[in-house]
Amino acid sequence: MTPEDIPDIVISRLPVYLRALSRLQTEGQEITSSKELGERLGISSAQIRKDLSHFGEFGKQGTGYEIKKLVDQLRRILKVEREWDVALVGAGAIGHALAHYNGFADNGFRITMIFDNDPAKIGTRLNGFEICDVARLGEQIQEHNITLAMVAVPAETAQAVTDELVKAGVRGILNYAPINLTVPEHVHVQYIDPVVHLQRITYYV
Amino acid sequence: MTPEDIPDIVISRLPVYLRALSRLQTEGQEITSSKELGERLGISSAQIRKDLSHFGEFGKQGTGYEIKKLVDQLRRILKVEREWDVALVGAGAIGHALAHYNGFADNGFRITMIFDNDPAKIGTRLNGFEICDVARLGEQIQEHNITLAMVAVPAETAQAVTDELVKAGVRGILNYAPINLTVPEHVHVQYIDPVVHLQRITYYV
Repeated sequence: MTPEDIPDIVISRLPVYLRALSRLQTEGQEITSSKELGERLGISSAQIRKDLSHFGEFGKQGTGYEIKKLVDQLRRILKVEREWDVALVGAGAIGHALAHYNGFADNGFRITMIFDNDPAKIGTRLNGFEICDVARLGEQIQEHNITLAMVAVPAETAQAVTDELVKAGVRGILNYAPINLTVPEHVHVQYIDPVVHLQRITYYV
Repeated sequence: MTPEDIPDIVISRLPVYLRALSRLQTEGQEITSSKELGERLGISSAQIRKDLSHFGEFGKQGTGYEIKKLVDQLRRILKVEREWDVALVGAGAIGHALAHYNGFADNGFRITMIFDNDPAKIGTRLNGFEICDVARLGEQIQEHNITLAMVAVPAETAQAVTDELVKAGVRGILNYAPINLTVPEHVHVQYIDPVVHLQRITYYV
């Protein structure tokens, strides 16, 4: 089965499975079942089995899943068995929180570059990394072959930053700016906007 | 049509439509079309028309949508024509970024309470609000009838905080902790985890 055949909605659940399984692992558990996993995640066990079946046979009827094996396989499927260098654009409040977030390290990501356009910030350090001038974004990204970036700049400049990133070879963007980005088809964007997420809640409350 | 009949996936797109329409509005535009909106969002115009048709007739064939009217109606559907008081639990790096985020104000939300368990932080102010002792979370939430909360505490304490919130009457939670929360059926949770979002990208890169 080629990647194109697997529905995006299935792919979107895999990191959530991986996170839950990693947690079970740190809790010292070695075997789990689709039932236990489903209860942890509020997803039906049938859904989990169906999602995983897209990628081959993971567990045996009655014996459950070997957590370590499933974790390894999910990491491979999601391509996070390696570590990705990530560029962070924007050293404001969100940029600061991301630069100090220690959840990236064991999960496949490492911020290796930080950019900002504020002369007062450029040249200073944020969690060990020198903040670079965003004017040099393109050349730096290209020089270091960075393919992933997090955009944490105001909405007004997010599209221009994105255009630069894409031109320099970035193919994946996690966007914190509250605006939809226009990108070529080969570039994948995920959005984080607390307002959008809160509005998805209020509808139901 | 009752809320239960409308697929979650449709609801999840409405805040994105609202955000794009609000942006067009600030750019001074008064009329738009599903085609223009679709191009901005990378969604087909047919999809947009179908999504909006769940809620009645919004536009006329050939004349497009009146942006102001559509914005007002989407706000009403999402229940953000009013302003929601939101409790923020956790005054770490993410909590700081959220407390200082100025995107909530015009979009239906207002952080009115901040909690932390760090004695060094309790009693100090964060963006004008006094940081309260998380030990008093339940009574404070109840006293002020808060129904929405953002959880920005470590994974280890997120479930306990959530249990307190739910007991105090909270029905919607935006969770920044990298863990799945177990909540009763009447409570709605949305998750923000940069690792999960990045892993949804790497699969395709």
